[in-house]
Amino acid sequence: MKRRGVLLIVSGPSGAGKGTLVRAYVDSREDVYLSVSATTRSPRAGEVDGTSYHFTSYEQFMDMVNEGQLLEWAEYCGNCYGTPKAAIEQMLAEGKDVILEIDVQGAMKIRSKMPEGVFIFVLPPSMEVLKQRLIGRESESNTSVIARLKRAQTEFLLIDKYNYVLVNDTIEQAISDLDGILRAEKCRIERNKNIIQEVCGDVISFN
Amino acid sequence: MKRRGVLLIVSGPSGAGKGTLVRAYVDSREDVYLSVSATTRSPRAGEVDGTSYHFTSYEQFMDMVNEGQLLEWAEYCGNCYGTPKAAIEQMLAEGKDVILEIDVQGAMKIRSKMPEGVFIFVLPPSMEVLKQRLIGRESESNTSVIARLKRAQTEFLLIDKYNYVLVNDTIEQAISDLDGILRAEKCRIERNKNIIQEVCGDVISFN
Repeated sequence: MKRRGVLLIVSGPSGAGKGTLVRAYVDSREDVYLSVSATTRSPRAGEVDGTSYHFTSYEQFMDMVNEGQLLEWAEYCGNCYGTPKAAIEQMLAEGKDVILEIDVQGAMKIRSKMPEGVFIFVLPPSMEVLKQRLIGRESESNTSVIARLKRAQTEFLLIDKYNYVLVNDTIEQAISDLDGILRAEKCRIERNKNIIQEVCGDVISFN
Repeated sequence: MKRRGVLLIVSGPSGAGKGTLVRAYVDSREDVYLSVSATTRSPRAGEVDGTSYHFTSYEQFMDMVNEGQLLEWAEYCGNCYGTPKAAIEQMLAEGKDVILEIDVQGAMKIRSKMPEGVFIFVLPPSMEVLKQRLIGRESESNTSVIARLKRAQTEFLLIDKYNYVLVNDTIEQAISDLDGILRAEKCRIERNKNIIQEVCGDVISFN
């Protein structure tokens, strides 16, 4: 009997390195699928529709919102970004593990709709490192480093809504930890009731 | 600040392969420590005091029982076996991860005293495999294969008292899963409050 896939939500403040981590992890694992966001933003050079993002018009996006097709959505710098529900649901039903990279507010919205999800907070090794990463980053937005650091501090307050914390010191360590979390979650009793039933036969009845 | 070590309790029915798994895992990891049981049984050829077991007299063993030095103990085929508490407690306090292999009844006793422990149930891939393993095993005890299978069935009823199930199909897979569980547990929010506090500073207060 097939086990339902695991949904990993990788989240954390801007500059914690969640994007780099998730891309490196998905590249290293053939059997983990990335959730692709929908956006009204125009594609940049090299971005592929359906892989980088699902690029939509504003009208299409709002139709998705109104039809309840998005797990969460938000506007950012004049563009809308959202997480399509159906693709994730289908992959999970097929037993595929899905990873979703999202900011803290988005993660909180998803948590209310998908409590089965595994919520991982990516933490920089120190505030000083976070600051240096934000300074070193060529950011498209006008948001200042100070504003981002302040926002990070309010986001830290939500860390105990998460299941795991991943201190992103070296990428190798962070990938190993992320992989460990996925392996472990696949072994959790509550995710294996079918398999347990299959092995143990009629002996077990879960209530 | 140091993280307290993780206590892994690897348990399951006789013949599920928990002993082989735990030995192979500990041999592959320098930083995971095996809990050594105390026993009144005589050492067999090749067994080393303090490594295989702590060999004690019956009087010494009962002193340990009376002084509350054992997390659990039981008599089996006329010999006493028990889990010394102090060594485990010291290793955990030093931030060392400890692994403890024990039968289901013992695990349940430990669960009541160490709820922070991570309880892993090792399941054979099928009842047929379990039967074949028990038949193939040169067992010292007189307990018949049928009696062990019946006992396994009653032990299965306790599986939802555990955190994880490890289907022991191939040893490589089982070792990877066990390693994933340890890595994941080390990332759990509730085990990292000191580290989170250190990174996030005064922003966070856990209640």
